[in-house]
Amino acid sequence: MGAIEFHFEDFEPGRVFTLASAEVTAEAIIAFAAEFDPQPMHLSEEAGKASILGGLSASGWHTASLFMRMMYDGWLARSSSEGSPGIEFMEWKKPVLAGDTLSGRSTVIEARALRSKPGIGLVKFLHEVENQHGTVVMRGENPIMMRLRTPSNVMAEVQA
Amino acid sequence: MGAIEFHFEDFEPGRVFTLASAEVTAEAIIAFAAEFDPQPMHLSEEAGKASILGGLSASGWHTASLFMRMMYDGWLARSSSEGSPGIEFMEWKKPVLAGDTLSGRSTVIEARALRSKPGIGLVKFLHEVENQHGTVVMRGENPIMMRLRTPSNVMAEVQA
Repeated sequence: MGAIEFHFEDFEPGRVFTLASAEVTAEAIIAFAAEFDPQPMHLSEEAGKASILGGLSASGWHTASLFMRMMYDGWLARSSSEGSPGIEFMEWKKPVLAGDTLSGRSTVIEARALRSKPGIGLVKFLHEVENQHGTVVMRGENPIMMRLRTPSNVMAEVQA
Repeated sequence: MGAIEFHFEDFEPGRVFTLASAEVTAEAIIAFAAEFDPQPMHLSEEAGKASILGGLSASGWHTASLFMRMMYDGWLARSSSEGSPGIEFMEWKKPVLAGDTLSGRSTVIEARALRSKPGIGLVKFLHEVENQHGTVVMRGENPIMMRLRTPSNVMAEVQA
């Protein structure tokens, strides 16, 4: 990772961080599915068309993994991230089809310094991923741990 | 997918379905991370040891994708699954390290036929993935849509 541009203090509620865009190819959909989620609608155009998804569609876990890369390239690589304890919820709202181009954003919902981990704060994000038609295909919330730029000042506030 | 053994009616609350086991190799951790989550602790043993994770550790999205395959091989391939609308929550509780062997289970929490989709029911599962020491590394809940074996009978019950 390169220089750190975003520390805990930069994640103010309401601030929006842009995800990098990603193209979803048929080859990538099939390769991911063959390894992790070999349900027929993720493995061939024919089975996809015969399913309720309407075409060769990415596994939801593939979309989630692509989102992770879009977030990394878009802003996380330049942050003081220390990882995440999990996902609060994730909705697969519309099929992600071969040929789609995904984009999106992470919006800060709340941020709080952690008494249990000095120098670390927890930032909760709403993530939204949409396709080239502007339709949201996946959305969810998750908290990410971020190192503070100036631990002593913020901890003083928390403990006041 | 082969013969369908489990329909909606078979997912009684409390019933436990066993996940297939999976070995997590350093090569697989690095390959997944290089594509989807290139944070240093997922790319080298050295950076992993220097992180709070304590070693070369799988991306949480890799663990989630491995879980999907463990579920598919364990029982989902033999079910009437029509896919899932999302994840209710997912917790990454402990690091998944190179050399770990994962196993686990899906436990039915609740099941209800859907008025909006005749012939389909929604089954909510608690999924738990643990390592070779019996430590739970990931847990979460998600609902999966299942076709009914006998749509008319169950719908009659629902609408009664």
